[in-house]
Amino acid sequence: MVVTGRAQVVGLGLMGSSISGALRANGWHVTGRDVDADRAARAAGIGVVDSLGSDSFADVAFVATPASAVVSVVHDLFSTSQASRLIVTDIAGVKGSIVNELSYPRFVAGHPMAGSEQEGPDGADAELFIGATWVLTPTEITDPAAFTTLQSIIAAIGADVVALSPDRHDELVAVISHVPHLTSATLMGLAGESSLDHAALMRLAAGGFRDMTRIAAGSPAIWPDICRDNAGAIVPVLDRLIEQLSAVRRIVAEGDWLALSERLEGARTARQNLPLRGARPAAVAELRVIVPDRPGVLAEVTTLAGELGVNIFDLEIAHSAEGPSGVLVLVVDAAMAEPVVAALRAHSYRVAWTTAK
Amino acid sequence: MVVTGRAQVVGLGLMGSSISGALRANGWHVTGRDVDADRAARAAGIGVVDSLGSDSFADVAFVATPASAVVSVVHDLFSTSQASRLIVTDIAGVKGSIVNELSYPRFVAGHPMAGSEQEGPDGADAELFIGATWVLTPTEITDPAAFTTLQSIIAAIGADVVALSPDRHDELVAVISHVPHLTSATLMGLAGESSLDHAALMRLAAGGFRDMTRIAAGSPAIWPDICRDNAGAIVPVLDRLIEQLSAVRRIVAEGDWLALSERLEGARTARQNLPLRGARPAAVAELRVIVPDRPGVLAEVTTLAGELGVNIFDLEIAHSAEGPSGVLVLVVDAAMAEPVVAALRAHSYRVAWTTAK
Repeated sequence: MVVTGRAQVVGLGLMGSSISGALRANGWHVTGRDVDADRAARAAGIGVVDSLGSDSFADVAFVATPASAVVSVVHDLFSTSQASRLIVTDIAGVKGSIVNELSYPRFVAGHPMAGSEQEGPDGADAELFIGATWVLTPTEITDPAAFTTLQSIIAAIGADVVALSPDRHDELVAVISHVPHLTSATLMGLAGESSLDHAALMRLAAGGFRDMTRIAAGSPAIWPDICRDNAGAIVPVLDRLIEQLSAVRRIVAEGDWLALSERLEGARTARQNLPLRGARPAAVAELRVIVPDRPGVLAEVTTLAGELGVNIFDLEIAHSAEGPSGVLVLVVDAAMAEPVVAALRAHSYRVAWTTAK
Repeated sequence: MVVTGRAQVVGLGLMGSSISGALRANGWHVTGRDVDADRAARAAGIGVVDSLGSDSFADVAFVATPASAVVSVVHDLFSTSQASRLIVTDIAGVKGSIVNELSYPRFVAGHPMAGSEQEGPDGADAELFIGATWVLTPTEITDPAAFTTLQSIIAAIGADVVALSPDRHDELVAVISHVPHLTSATLMGLAGESSLDHAALMRLAAGGFRDMTRIAAGSPAIWPDICRDNAGAIVPVLDRLIEQLSAVRRIVAEGDWLALSERLEGARTARQNLPLRGARPAAVAELRVIVPDRPGVLAEVTTLAGELGVNIFDLEIAHSAEGPSGVLVLVVDAAMAEPVVAALRAHSYRVAWTTAK
């Protein structure tokens, strides 16, 4: 499915500008706005957007503002839209706190797992999302047609959509993003402690330390918002990290080298199994799921796949001519088709699948 | 000063082979050996060494074995040497435990801060040390002439020598290498915990997480030795890390965003100030230090510079024609000359300096 039309992008920082550029490259007419007039003018000046301002006829809106502004911007977009079926999404790093405040069936919250050291429209990269994972967090009120359309828009700019529940997303990003960031800054802070000789230490800092503290060089501005919005997930993960580091401390102090080796081996294996960003499957499978026509089915089916780490390459809803059920067609990595089918069947779905395409 | 001659390298893994290659490129005749006969044959086969076995007439020996073998290899080298003034160094990652066991004035322990994901002679890179920091840990028994010669050999293969006391080195590497490694593995372990859905999480793992866990993919084999040898420095650093992470946890749980921002800002500044590997000074300064002819002066002068993070680009000892004192000539980054001179004068040294060269 190829979708183009009119898009509104709110917030023209690096991410909003990159989304704008990617949409334009796909034939969209993009209207952008930003509370910072200079930044908006810059984005227009370098051709990241087609025009500036508000397009009340936009078919889709991407809210790329700071997280704290998302809820009010989404309300504003829906209340001023004159389009028949506006779809709105956002890109904030924490989803539960936003999704809980908004009950529009055609608002589908999202989080593209991509970024850059650059800032602002000048850092925009229309290819930033190629091969990136882009989480969408459908809920039981989500309009399946809105989700399907948004999935194809995002797939067209090169990202792989993974569906997760908002809470699940927040728990996972606490582990793979928020707590690592806080840890990186803390390690850097230790190295900067005055009791240590900073200069000699910095001289010795080789590749591993540089790798581990790289993210600490990023702008701190977004972190108070993220930590406030996701404290519920971050605090328990920090507790687990502290507990595990205390166990390592005990192991080193007591000289239990077997336990140390086991831990390091386990971590090594896990790290080596980290999938490559944007690795493409050798083959895809088409799953046809018979779905009852009730709310929440789309969220349930797609997030069952998301929980297994499976991204959705394509998605279509075929309503049945007879009776209240339909068919949801999911295209996924063929190698993951069996576990997804098993998970769906365990949830009482009827599924047929082929490795067609 | 250009030095060449006969070198012995013991241990032909990645580091030993890279040192061999770098020495050969500088005109040295390198004899290598390894307890693993296949590895030794491979190193000879690909031309990393000139010959295999023991060269009892070697002028310098690099011990690049696992840390646990260094002490006995050094004893063996000195007891079998027929050269008049053999100099021996090693490359183990922890220095105190080795230096304390060896009392040869011409053994100068070292630690090149360079490495690679590769392994064995096939991963050897004669340019591995260009721009790298190479720590030497002179003590009060160190023969100044041996230190000076070794410094120039190492400088010739492209590394910057920084002198530190063995204990100081061990404390610093606990902060910038050992504890970060244990933390990286622990973060990876958290992500691998069975309570979390591994696959979905791995899908979300973006650049920051990959950076922070990269070193966890390395071979765990060396870590029990390192942790045993450096437990005295690692355990207190782990304690500080746990204490600081507990403070961050409290800040997030209590919502003290001002304190969070301050921490993150501090870490950002420190990270941005991390010197670039191998950054070369725009100008150098020559310091002439009047030194009394007593043991330990060389270690004291060079480690005073090392504590300030200053590397030694060149080093020469001119014995005075009259009386029991001499002149130690140190070439350092001109921008750091003043603090080094101040530190030396604070320790009652008489210093003259020029930004010659």
